[in-house]
Amino acid sequence: MKDFLPALLQDWRLGDASGASALEAFAQRHGTPLYLSSAPLIERRIAALRAELPAGLALLYALKANPHPPVVAHVGPLVDGCDVTSAAEIAIALDAGIAGNTLSVAGPGKSDEDLAAAVAADALVVVESLGEARRLAALGEAHRLARGRRPRIALRINPPFGLAADARMGGGPRPFGVDSEAAPEVLAEIGRLPLAFEGFHVYAGSRCLDALAIAEAQRATLRLACELAPFAPAPVRLLNLGGGLGIPCFPGEAPLNVAALGDALRATAREAAHLLPDARLALELGRYLVGEAGLYLTRVVERKASRGRVFLILDGGAHHHWHATGALEGRRHLHFPIAVVGGTGRPTERVTVCGPLCAPHDIWAEDIELPIAAPGDLVAVFQSGAYGASASPQAFLGRPPAAELLTEWPARRAATVPHSHPQLQETEHA
Amino acid sequence: MKDFLPALLQDWRLGDASGASALEAFAQRHGTPLYLSSAPLIERRIAALRAELPAGLALLYALKANPHPPVVAHVGPLVDGCDVTSAAEIAIALDAGIAGNTLSVAGPGKSDEDLAAAVAADALVVVESLGEARRLAALGEAHRLARGRRPRIALRINPPFGLAADARMGGGPRPFGVDSEAAPEVLAEIGRLPLAFEGFHVYAGSRCLDALAIAEAQRATLRLACELAPFAPAPVRLLNLGGGLGIPCFPGEAPLNVAALGDALRATAREAAHLLPDARLALELGRYLVGEAGLYLTRVVERKASRGRVFLILDGGAHHHWHATGALEGRRHLHFPIAVVGGTGRPTERVTVCGPLCAPHDIWAEDIELPIAAPGDLVAVFQSGAYGASASPQAFLGRPPAAELLTEWPARRAATVPHSHPQLQETEHA
Repeated sequence: MKDFLPALLQDWRLGDASGASALEAFAQRHGTPLYLSSAPLIERRIAALRAELPAGLALLYALKANPHPPVVAHVGPLVDGCDVTSAAEIAIALDAGIAGNTLSVAGPGKSDEDLAAAVAADALVVVESLGEARRLAALGEAHRLARGRRPRIALRINPPFGLAADARMGGGPRPFGVDSEAAPEVLAEIGRLPLAFEGFHVYAGSRCLDALAIAEAQRATLRLACELAPFAPAPVRLLNLGGGLGIPCFPGEAPLNVAALGDALRATAREAAHLLPDARLALELGRYLVGEAGLYLTRVVERKASRGRVFLILDGGAHHHWHATGALEGRRHLHFPIAVVGGTGRPTERVTVCGPLCAPHDIWAEDIELPIAAPGDLVAVFQSGAYGASASPQAFLGRPPAAELLTEWPARRAATVPHSHPQLQETEHA
Repeated sequence: MKDFLPALLQDWRLGDASGASALEAFAQRHGTPLYLSSAPLIERRIAALRAELPAGLALLYALKANPHPPVVAHVGPLVDGCDVTSAAEIAIALDAGIAGNTLSVAGPGKSDEDLAAAVAADALVVVESLGEARRLAALGEAHRLARGRRPRIALRINPPFGLAADARMGGGPRPFGVDSEAAPEVLAEIGRLPLAFEGFHVYAGSRCLDALAIAEAQRATLRLACELAPFAPAPVRLLNLGGGLGIPCFPGEAPLNVAALGDALRATAREAAHLLPDARLALELGRYLVGEAGLYLTRVVERKASRGRVFLILDGGAHHHWHATGALEGRRHLHFPIAVVGGTGRPTERVTVCGPLCAPHDIWAEDIELPIAAPGDLVAVFQSGAYGASASPQAFLGRPPAAELLTEWPARRAATVPHSHPQLQETEHA
């Protein structure tokens, strides 16, 4: 049922007692609930992906997936820049030592504060409408006069196609970007504004596990950019292909075939080198880079029976990890992979796993098989490195926020370390 | 389609220019997005409800609906206590001047810290399992020795029935409370613990708009309490009937017939006076008391067209007001009532209203008729006084949190002021 769980257990060394005792030690030092991100697993994932990507492709980290500052500081040197969406995310990236001119700022409702922070950082602004281009040009005037530079922009295009993914974000009417058919006119207008045009941005969909579908959207994006390039006010130096690379979270899902995606993307890159010779291709990825490198650790508060069903009630719930619980109604019967830490080899039972909220949606998993657990036992929720704490209503019911920790555990396997980088400390940020 | 919108517009004086200019002034003073709660509208709602309820019934405010401290401080003197679910909510209530012994602490996964805070405040603990009763008894020993009092408890019962409501919380297997059929045994065990038993708590469901269904659940709760009373270790002095009184939020919903509910509840109270003569009845209500007394104010950032559809993009979105947006997948095509402030009399158009997030679920309303709006216009989302800021992932994408404000606006109508109380200041809490 869950093909990907054994690999996760191995990654996290949860098949043996040493892994379980390491997690127990983290939980005791930092309390539960605790988000744990693994620096070595992040490195391993990025290195494995880089090995499949075309040389020269820019890999951007979508900060929205996990803006925990130590995570951003660790990912920063392993990628070519960050995709950010607000003044606060720009500040997090700058504070993490990431160069402002490697940031790409997207979002359909940027405030003047967001635009001003982008201009001040010399970031690339992904413009989503002509109105926004005009606001940016006005804001950019002071910047241009002071620094002799125009605000750098890419134009986000709403393509005629979408990516059939968990969250389709292109095709049809959309609040994102400029419709492809309207782009020539908008590009002409942009050419008359004091803005430095650098290229195009297309985001067709999010959390897709089908490599061929992603590859097809990337090829279509290149074709679209080639059609629009003659209307651009300057050579196309950047083509941001978006992201959309998913990780398996729910039963029955299989990991993305990244080798197949890499093959197709290298072919697309070769084509791009002919058709748009000045353009660097870029991908912006969040969940794919850090999602599998994160665990959520929570303890059993209660084990109780009700009318023939056993309930485990955990100290963590929907307020910390909204997307992993039944809070999203369409997914009430799905669940993220869960393990009882140290439970390997114990007899199992069927349980429904709940959070502590006095609310009916606070359900981790309904009627699943788990090793028998008791109050005090530690439970790990996998695939928790992305869209966790920052994407959840942490203040709900006045419960304390989860601790967040970037750790060196599990230790690197020498063969897979891709970069040398400074020694990390365990850094807690609550 | 929206029967309840005209009444809301009237309550908030949005039919005329004075109401619109008052809201615009709030937005200018406090910025947008802004949650505005009206002290007079809260008072009016509570007075109208009290007029229908049986004399002597205890009305508790469920703090989870809106824990904004000025709101809690204002509601406190108008009710008989608060329903709270965590140590932090206990602290908010105490800080607001609410007596600790009028607090009722519920929740299926209370931490030791929650229980200790409850005991220290002399609050009533709504015990949800025998395991929790034992933890509380152990924690309570120090308290008992110091103050000569045992921890006060009510036993939460998972009834054999539920309330067919927005969120059903009773009947069948549940993580909440003790199954009614297991209660006699648990009550016997509780009798052997150093705990002061006061009564029962039953919560059948949440956000119900059907008065007769709520009344039937309340009658059934009384019957259940009468069946269990002989097994209780002490006379039943409290019967908490739960809550569940909804407010209309989505198109086609009609307000609860509170007069009909009041008639039925008065009959139930008369029966209770015979059957459980020592018991005080209680209701715990959150959304019903404060939901309609709150507005969310947000400004238009962009008005754009895409493939035949007009999009308004607002500066506020799902990160501030999760339950009002399409973030709950089952409700993607529903929407809370929305008005363009000052838009009365303008020509209208069909629009899709979105938030600023770079995320496909950030949709306020799809394809609705609104007065034509431009960037800078103020938009009001009604029914926003409950489950707003505190129930939303405010940190998502690093966007700033919404300001929250309790105000004296709109002015009281003399005839409906139920209580005298200290003059309020405008109090901002960001």
